[in-house]
Amino acid sequence: MVADKSDKPEFKRSPSRFVDRITADGAEGWPVEPGRYRLVVSRACPWANRSMIARRLLGLEPALSLAVADPVQDERSWRFTLDPDDRDPVLGIRYLAEAYHARDPEYTGGVSVPAIVDVPSGKLVTNDYLRLPAELATEWRDLHREGAPDLYPEPLREEIEEISDAIFRDVNNGVYMCGFARTQQTYERAFTALFDRLDALSDHLATRRYLVGDSITVADIALFVTLVRFDAVYHGHFKCNRNKLTEMPVLWAYARDLFQTPGIGDTVDFDHIKRHYYVVHREINPSGIVPLGPDLSGWRTPHGREVLGGRPFGDGTPPGPPPEEERVPARF
Amino acid sequence: MVADKSDKPEFKRSPSRFVDRITADGAEGWPVEPGRYRLVVSRACPWANRSMIARRLLGLEPALSLAVADPVQDERSWRFTLDPDDRDPVLGIRYLAEAYHARDPEYTGGVSVPAIVDVPSGKLVTNDYLRLPAELATEWRDLHREGAPDLYPEPLREEIEEISDAIFRDVNNGVYMCGFARTQQTYERAFTALFDRLDALSDHLATRRYLVGDSITVADIALFVTLVRFDAVYHGHFKCNRNKLTEMPVLWAYARDLFQTPGIGDTVDFDHIKRHYYVVHREINPSGIVPLGPDLSGWRTPHGREVLGGRPFGDGTPPGPPPEEERVPARF
Repeated sequence: MVADKSDKPEFKRSPSRFVDRITADGAEGWPVEPGRYRLVVSRACPWANRSMIARRLLGLEPALSLAVADPVQDERSWRFTLDPDDRDPVLGIRYLAEAYHARDPEYTGGVSVPAIVDVPSGKLVTNDYLRLPAELATEWRDLHREGAPDLYPEPLREEIEEISDAIFRDVNNGVYMCGFARTQQTYERAFTALFDRLDALSDHLATRRYLVGDSITVADIALFVTLVRFDAVYHGHFKCNRNKLTEMPVLWAYARDLFQTPGIGDTVDFDHIKRHYYVVHREINPSGIVPLGPDLSGWRTPHGREVLGGRPFGDGTPPGPPPEEERVPARF
Repeated sequence: MVADKSDKPEFKRSPSRFVDRITADGAEGWPVEPGRYRLVVSRACPWANRSMIARRLLGLEPALSLAVADPVQDERSWRFTLDPDDRDPVLGIRYLAEAYHARDPEYTGGVSVPAIVDVPSGKLVTNDYLRLPAELATEWRDLHREGAPDLYPEPLREEIEEISDAIFRDVNNGVYMCGFARTQQTYERAFTALFDRLDALSDHLATRRYLVGDSITVADIALFVTLVRFDAVYHGHFKCNRNKLTEMPVLWAYARDLFQTPGIGDTVDFDHIKRHYYVVHREINPSGIVPLGPDLSGWRTPHGREVLGGRPFGDGTPPGPPPEEERVPARF
């Protein structure tokens, strides 16, 4: 989640600045090693949420530890004020920006999550929010749990990339373009593209349990992280209000199916999501008041998507429950 | 709709300042006379909407003419920029404030609609937004159309006042208290009171077609004007987002029933409503961008409330269509 939206004429998402790859063969200087890296996230952030879901589904928790930032940033951005002494207990830093500066003392750009930090050096390795889930699914394969699904199957990659690009442009980024539009025209263009795309995805998913193939892939993860935030923040705060997700039956059932899948819904904290968006974006919510709605109880209701078939984990198995220290308190 | 919310610690609705009564006997100096007065409204404003509906149901159009202000006020408040030369063609003024000042040159308070102006003198007579519908229903009786309903029946007045007081406090004014709250606590108190009241009204209306008695009264008009604006503005803009109206089945059917009743829905202009709230309240919507949603097509769907019985107009009949010059363009 990039903090670069205030002075530009229209919202434009920054590309990731640090895109080093952590690989099985260490070709870029960062070999995959258990315990060496720390994944820094905010539970508010949809981009971070993707990496969290991939890590959970793949059982990477023992190999790649997790730091959860406070959902409310201050002027120095993401901070570890949820931890004792306001410091991340592993990295020993108070602000994620410190890892960025350890990597590049001259860096003055935005500080975003997800970020992977090299624990021994304290340096940021990558904040490549779009590529991380597929990297975890492939380069980190030796450290996957037994029964881990294949989230990025070789024969489906072209199809996955194609649908993910459209989802990125019109949905993941589209909601931000609605919310941070400076003109009525820009807003209306983004709104129309968003709902046209959601309608097309709804048609696509009416007869298929998942977006590509018959198992969960990184494409589903990409769509889910925006859908799960839709009614809580995008519908009102970002004016994506043609309908609520709950009024789009196919997408609402699809999202509930994923939410109820082990390793997906258990990464979601609606409290963090609502507080981040409504408190931080004072330029669109000057009061900082956080709505009490929406009623979230529908997320646990039966979705009926089993009739479409599909095998959530392909040849694999569901992950176990999250580690004790990573559990999200029950909010509803 | 009162413009007095910017400097106070919390939102507090001003009482009407000018509460002279126009009566059948002229006891307060303002006798009911056909053609003498002009009702100034904004179609955006729920308080003005009440008087507009009463006037339509009672067939007072020939007796009491209508001036419709631009939904977007400027720093001098309500203005007649929808009219040729930006002047009300009957009163000859550009701003409603001119009628306030004709009445009281020293007046510095808010300028609100609905307002009744004495055409010969150009003076404001009353801006008593809460009392006007009942006054039109009683004092103006000699000028009602044939078949006009009794919107304020003598034997039901105590019951009407009691339920209208609760609706005013928790619903009509409650949505504003949510939207203009300065603290989380004030917001949450108003939100809770609002939805508790809506739940109670929903229970009440589950077995009754109308709020009091078996015909439409001023109490129904009072509730309707907030319900009809609920999803379009209060849900998102004012953070009244536990549910949309469309997710509260009894109230949604009740509101559609009234909307589809001649004389009620034909006063509603969703375009004026959305533009007023989203453009004028920059303190809660700094961009001034007007959402494209919600999808409004549900308003014309069958409501099924006929099975509850009730006689919309009591012993009376429905009004005919609105005068040509008062018709709202089809928006959906």
